[in-house]
Amino acid sequence: MVAQSMDSLVSLSKRRGFIFQSNNIYGGLQGVYDFGPLGVELKKNIRESWWSDIVYKNENIFGLDASILTHPLVLNYSGHEETFTDPLVDCKDCKARHRADFIKDSKCPLCGSTALTQPRDFNLMFKTNIGPVADSNNFAYLRPETAQQIFTNFKNIMDSSSPTLPFGIAQIGKAFRNEITPRNFIFRVREFEQMELEYFVKPNDADKALEEWLEQRLNWWDMQGVCKDKLEIYDVPSDELSHYSAKTYDLMYEFPHGKEELEGIANRTDFDLGSHSQNQEALKINAKIKHNPDSKSKLAIQDENGEWFVPYVIEPSAGIERAFLAILNEAYNEESLENGKNRVVLKLKPHLAPVKAAVIPLKKNDMGLVKMATELKNTLQKNIDQRIVLENTGNIGKSYRKHDEIGTPYCITIDFDSLTEGTVTIRNRDTMKQDTVKVESISKHMSL
Amino acid sequence: MVAQSMDSLVSLSKRRGFIFQSNNIYGGLQGVYDFGPLGVELKKNIRESWWSDIVYKNENIFGLDASILTHPLVLNYSGHEETFTDPLVDCKDCKARHRADFIKDSKCPLCGSTALTQPRDFNLMFKTNIGPVADSNNFAYLRPETAQQIFTNFKNIMDSSSPTLPFGIAQIGKAFRNEITPRNFIFRVREFEQMELEYFVKPNDADKALEEWLEQRLNWWDMQGVCKDKLEIYDVPSDELSHYSAKTYDLMYEFPHGKEELEGIANRTDFDLGSHSQNQEALKINAKIKHNPDSKSKLAIQDENGEWFVPYVIEPSAGIERAFLAILNEAYNEESLENGKNRVVLKLKPHLAPVKAAVIPLKKNDMGLVKMATELKNTLQKNIDQRIVLENTGNIGKSYRKHDEIGTPYCITIDFDSLTEGTVTIRNRDTMKQDTVKVESISKHMSL
Repeated sequence: MVAQSMDSLVSLSKRRGFIFQSNNIYGGLQGVYDFGPLGVELKKNIRESWWSDIVYKNENIFGLDASILTHPLVLNYSGHEETFTDPLVDCKDCKARHRADFIKDSKCPLCGSTALTQPRDFNLMFKTNIGPVADSNNFAYLRPETAQQIFTNFKNIMDSSSPTLPFGIAQIGKAFRNEITPRNFIFRVREFEQMELEYFVKPNDADKALEEWLEQRLNWWDMQGVCKDKLEIYDVPSDELSHYSAKTYDLMYEFPHGKEELEGIANRTDFDLGSHSQNQEALKINAKIKHNPDSKSKLAIQDENGEWFVPYVIEPSAGIERAFLAILNEAYNEESLENGKNRVVLKLKPHLAPVKAAVIPLKKNDMGLVKMATELKNTLQKNIDQRIVLENTGNIGKSYRKHDEIGTPYCITIDFDSLTEGTVTIRNRDTMKQDTVKVESISKHMSL
Repeated sequence: MVAQSMDSLVSLSKRRGFIFQSNNIYGGLQGVYDFGPLGVELKKNIRESWWSDIVYKNENIFGLDASILTHPLVLNYSGHEETFTDPLVDCKDCKARHRADFIKDSKCPLCGSTALTQPRDFNLMFKTNIGPVADSNNFAYLRPETAQQIFTNFKNIMDSSSPTLPFGIAQIGKAFRNEITPRNFIFRVREFEQMELEYFVKPNDADKALEEWLEQRLNWWDMQGVCKDKLEIYDVPSDELSHYSAKTYDLMYEFPHGKEELEGIANRTDFDLGSHSQNQEALKINAKIKHNPDSKSKLAIQDENGEWFVPYVIEPSAGIERAFLAILNEAYNEESLENGKNRVVLKLKPHLAPVKAAVIPLKKNDMGLVKMATELKNTLQKNIDQRIVLENTGNIGKSYRKHDEIGTPYCITIDFDSLTEGTVTIRNRDTMKQDTVKVESISKHMSL
């Protein structure tokens, strides 16, 4: 296993159909990507794995799929209108704009000029006009995170699902940030997907819940092939904490371009529900919040004595694109084989693999082989509701190389013995070991 | 079974956590909805069922997950900038704006005034500024349909997946339309999700492929509980066809508010690939297209003689919200029971049900019953990667009513016989029949 360069991941992604530059036939949109036939499956499998681990396994966690278009008041009271900014610097010579903290040696990264403006705040939220009247009163934001719509749905879920503390609301969906300088492939992009859980607890239970979620999230990453010893737990110092957070752990991962945040797990206290609640005065909210005369809902819960209070919330928040990149990076291997050749192999965990198995007839035009391969493919497909392919090129070596590169866990070859003996050869992607097994017992030899 | 009013669906959706008005704590955003804990599962199951039927079952159909942010040139050459409009009428008295074809008796639907402007074109696409320079050159559209990004990825998929005709590219994702008058619950909304397949064929095969996809789509709807006799096939007359279409079938369904389009299946000819291709002159394109000097890709295929041509495309295109509404409407039943009572039951197809099974201990506080129920719930959960719930209220009747209303196919009751005999009672949602079965054979009695 070798440390990977971003280039090898970008190149594999494009060549095999994981990721393409978006809108590339018209020159592309910077910081926006499309996921091709294999990328869409890997992304889907990451989503499924998170949803299953967070929602299905925890009876007290409820799913949500809220809108991207967001009422401006949501992002006013959340603090985004004021604070969701990056420092922006203009080059007076070439007119390019840059994120101030990306400028080195006080020079414009494009033209080298030192004639730069002072940094000023640039809000990262995308806006759009809504409704048939285009004026400044009729706009919505594209949500910059999925979290806020979880808070605004707190009472809807209390009313419809009657949960008791502790309970969580989980959401996977797109979010948008107008990054000044998108870069590092799919790491810093303008359109991305988040997997966020807001887990509501009694204020006194928040510290413990934060530690528990840290542990659970590390276990989840481990199951995706990003083992614990690859993640550094950064206990964010208080002077670096976001305005809403009492304590945050960042899971830091060594991406090909450097060590950066893969997931954040934060104790957001009663800031969010407190900010969006009506009747704030009566609720003894601990966080520093803005007075909210607009909200129509009380976002609070009654304790055993009938007293209303605002729960604290623990938030594990991860981005799918960063997960995708870390998982791809961990899976990517260039190996030297005994025969002197090299191979690229994606050692993806089987549940994440875009293609679960390839069925390969030994010869392309042999009717018997192709018929048996097709039947086997159809049988497997019936039982495995994911991509199974029939690889009818007649070139076994080339098929193996392709399926190693895209991470297919199993290649099943149909040869002439298959026709007479009812056996097939099943090849393991990681060990390259080939076993001859009875066709009816294939599923026992596949662990997906 | 009775014909349903929209009100009963809206009310059930809110009460049980299927669908909420988006941003409702701040007065809501018109034409935008959030999907709650049950809605997110039903939506997910509709998506899965479509993806499985379209992508996994067809080896020659490739998945895609492209961006929402769309380069303006894409929607220029597609014709959307010019033609994706609705006629808008202003009321001179109350200043309200309305879709012209929704005006009755030449009166403003809000104030009744007859002082209305002449209709003018209003473009339905949402725009947003992109990048740190906010001027008219730096904007993107929110895609008004997922189809266009399929066409712009045609060459990416040709290059990475090397398909041969016929083949398809499928996508599920959000799309946005700035409807002048959103209405009829989730039927006509501003933010929605599409399931679109673009199936590329040789021009001579297009007519046949259109008929085949019509048949396949009718079968799919049937599997979702919208049977063929509920769908009217409307062969769109040529003077009503969209500018890109040579022939379109609309599947018309009787929604609670009236008969409207559920899905369209169109022969889009070589219009789309032709519109987005470079070197159009050399390609003998049949459709009437705009000259495109901007595209950097040739979107064509070589025939047996090495001649380049632009494939035709058949497009089955459905919206998830409309599917959701039709499926909910078909599943919704108010039944009179023999004991004189009524029940509301959602007879959803089991694969679509948000909760697959509820395990119910007969008594709330009996440790033995609750322990056995919890163990059974955990065992089922391990094998069924969807929502299974433990319904620990101690009120069997109430649990049955709840799970009838949300469409849970099976309720499994643990009683005192369960502890001594190892049997449980499994109740079928539709027949209300209860069977006593051995706990280890439960899965044989559940068809999901």
